[in-house]
Amino acid sequence: MSIDAALRALAPVLGDRLSLSKSDLAAHGQSETHFDPTPPDAVAYPRTTQEVSQIVKICAQHRCPVVGYGAGTSLEGHTLATQGGITVDFRHMAQVLEVHSEDMTVRVQPGITREALNEDLRATGLFFPVDPGANATLGGMAATRASGTTAVRYGTMRDNVMALEVVLADGRVIRTGSGARKSSAGYDLTALLVGSEGTLGLITELTLKLQGQPEAIAAATCAFDTIDAAVQAVTATIAMGIPMARIEFLDAASVAAVNAYSRADFLVTPHLMVEFHGSDAGVAEQAERFGDIAQDCGGSAFSWASKPEDRTRLWQMRHHAYWAIIASRKNTTAIVTDVCVPISKLAQAVAETQADIDAAPIPAPILGHVGDGNFHAILLIDPDNADEKRAAVDLSAGMAERALALGGTVTGEHGVGLGKLPYMAAEHGAGWDVMGQIKRAMDPLNILNPGKVVRLD
Amino acid sequence: MSIDAALRALAPVLGDRLSLSKSDLAAHGQSETHFDPTPPDAVAYPRTTQEVSQIVKICAQHRCPVVGYGAGTSLEGHTLATQGGITVDFRHMAQVLEVHSEDMTVRVQPGITREALNEDLRATGLFFPVDPGANATLGGMAATRASGTTAVRYGTMRDNVMALEVVLADGRVIRTGSGARKSSAGYDLTALLVGSEGTLGLITELTLKLQGQPEAIAAATCAFDTIDAAVQAVTATIAMGIPMARIEFLDAASVAAVNAYSRADFLVTPHLMVEFHGSDAGVAEQAERFGDIAQDCGGSAFSWASKPEDRTRLWQMRHHAYWAIIASRKNTTAIVTDVCVPISKLAQAVAETQADIDAAPIPAPILGHVGDGNFHAILLIDPDNADEKRAAVDLSAGMAERALALGGTVTGEHGVGLGKLPYMAAEHGAGWDVMGQIKRAMDPLNILNPGKVVRLD
Repeated sequence: MSIDAALRALAPVLGDRLSLSKSDLAAHGQSETHFDPTPPDAVAYPRTTQEVSQIVKICAQHRCPVVGYGAGTSLEGHTLATQGGITVDFRHMAQVLEVHSEDMTVRVQPGITREALNEDLRATGLFFPVDPGANATLGGMAATRASGTTAVRYGTMRDNVMALEVVLADGRVIRTGSGARKSSAGYDLTALLVGSEGTLGLITELTLKLQGQPEAIAAATCAFDTIDAAVQAVTATIAMGIPMARIEFLDAASVAAVNAYSRADFLVTPHLMVEFHGSDAGVAEQAERFGDIAQDCGGSAFSWASKPEDRTRLWQMRHHAYWAIIASRKNTTAIVTDVCVPISKLAQAVAETQADIDAAPIPAPILGHVGDGNFHAILLIDPDNADEKRAAVDLSAGMAERALALGGTVTGEHGVGLGKLPYMAAEHGAGWDVMGQIKRAMDPLNILNPGKVVRLD
Repeated sequence: MSIDAALRALAPVLGDRLSLSKSDLAAHGQSETHFDPTPPDAVAYPRTTQEVSQIVKICAQHRCPVVGYGAGTSLEGHTLATQGGITVDFRHMAQVLEVHSEDMTVRVQPGITREALNEDLRATGLFFPVDPGANATLGGMAATRASGTTAVRYGTMRDNVMALEVVLADGRVIRTGSGARKSSAGYDLTALLVGSEGTLGLITELTLKLQGQPEAIAAATCAFDTIDAAVQAVTATIAMGIPMARIEFLDAASVAAVNAYSRADFLVTPHLMVEFHGSDAGVAEQAERFGDIAQDCGGSAFSWASKPEDRTRLWQMRHHAYWAIIASRKNTTAIVTDVCVPISKLAQAVAETQADIDAAPIPAPILGHVGDGNFHAILLIDPDNADEKRAAVDLSAGMAERALALGGTVTGEHGVGLGKLPYMAAEHGAGWDVMGQIKRAMDPLNILNPGKVVRLD
């Protein structure tokens, strides 16, 4: 392996779009959470698929690691160049290439963010529904199989990526999937690449499913006395088959942080934030049914956000909850957990997590996309306090192990990155070895985001 | 490779559940369509995952081909033992293992058929929605990524299989997925195995998503003067975002065959058969909106099937359409095509197909799951007439090539099997080589359904 040789070969190809600047390297070596900074040796800014292919070919020749980079919003250290090498930043490949209104699909480059995409789509009456909160890039969202608040209705990136263009580890360019809404033509390479975290290929183009803007939208918040009551309302709503567009849970600590950060005045008790999409009549019916269920579970202080600006404010508050929670403690670093369990185990999982947190020396607000059984605890630690760090690691491990014991997964949406690698063997058993076999077959030199997702002994 | 040695090693393991009877071999060497019979050397009837693992281990030791077998309803020759070896018939692994009502999931063995599963689920108020028409096994449906009439609403097997237990090519048993509704924990092995047609592993258990029985169901048939008018009604309905549970197209020739076979009296013109699922109010609203659109497109002779028995009869007629069409010509063999195109290209694809059929010397009724852009022509040939066979091959090739030219796929739901192998390179380009790399990594001896899906040069 010679990273220097790769850099020398890349320089004439990319010119000033190969950056060795210290600040650039440092910026790409940061993560949103608690991982140690690990900068790459250079940052490449390709403009075309052809250039990405050239970069990977050169890196393959010199066995130089290649790490894809979107908006850097990963919470599990996916983009950290832990073995050095080249970070490929897709910011110059951020175009909407083609909107197919009749097919309700769009072809985009990987560097476009979901907010920019939806801004671009506004006039079409269509939107891209997957919403992880952060303004991530579509390439990054596909690579981590992101989801978020709307997955309960519209699915995750697994469900919304129809086709990909991908640069493989030897520089070959393939297209997976097609413009058809379904296919039985062989192995589902699209699904294999979605969630592969840049370890099997670099995504250079995506075809995404779009949704029509709903005729009617209604959103509401509802307060509950206990976490258990709120979670019971969620499971009852799902059992009734009410088509929720969003159903989000915040515990009292999260609500307090949101109040302080977003100058809101929610009761400081567990809350659900919900949204319904459909026809006027359909939304009214869904909202009424949900209201009945919530009331049966002791819900109170209903507040309906019917105006678009009120809804925007509501979901901004929700999306900023992560920052609100971090701001709720001074000089803190967050360790974000992300487990997902069967709906039938959600109440138990949240209650036991809450009990663990109550017994721990650190604050850890809980919130999540409970309609999917997915929730997070934001563990707030003083990074210089070893006891707190140990407590956070223990809490995080306890949540992951409990999720597995309950038949769930150690990451519902944040991905493996560095943080969840220690649990992959426990979650997948021999299946993890199969992932390694696939990695070796598709990236025999182990140059694509090495050290992530799989173990290659 | 020594198949005989494998048979000798298997005999003491399986006893009389290893069959060498001529009739058994012949039955498993047949297909529903035009492929030449190719019986295996033996048929194994395992009762447990452990036995499947033993079978595969022994076959691996002797490099003996292993072909999975469900209900034998494949239309592309998937189960034909073209290289001999052992067919593994899952009929003794056909149990419902566990219903999780609250999670709306069920764990089943692969040999259960979809009708048996739904019969078993009846008392729970839940049902499994994927409906390919044929009473296929769930293992077979997963292996071919089946779909059918309801995919427009509930998705295909890709969307409805949450987790699998799989015996790999070396006999190892893995579990993929989990009981959580989403996960970002590594490569999506479930999605890779769904649609792999028994070439990467043998499915020994499935966890499936279930749906609540809709509160209200309405179904209808509607006649159109032309194919184009019917297809326009489909694309307009989809553009309006009306949530159809089914939207099926039959051309005039298909309708005539259905009339004769099922003693019905539809107008002999192109028809749509539709179904809506939802609340009482929701279904009424959807039905009214669809009615308006159909009328705008010249639809007439609306007939609503509101009673359950009328709906059952309607969908039985649809499901028997394949047999009705075969019965419409004496001494015929069917070659069934299966293409899927972007919705925006559906009208063009159907019209050009119809023109080709009009110019051909054989009858070929068209029907399909047009809400997904998926349609079939049933090419009816006299198997002893070389001209007709050639015409059918040409029509089929023309449809596949047109689907690719229009950005679609050569198989929407029937799978690759033997029939679609010739188009895999054209559809996937270098992606087909990647499929081969994955196959080699997971089945280096090429014993699992050899000769299917991939090319191993």
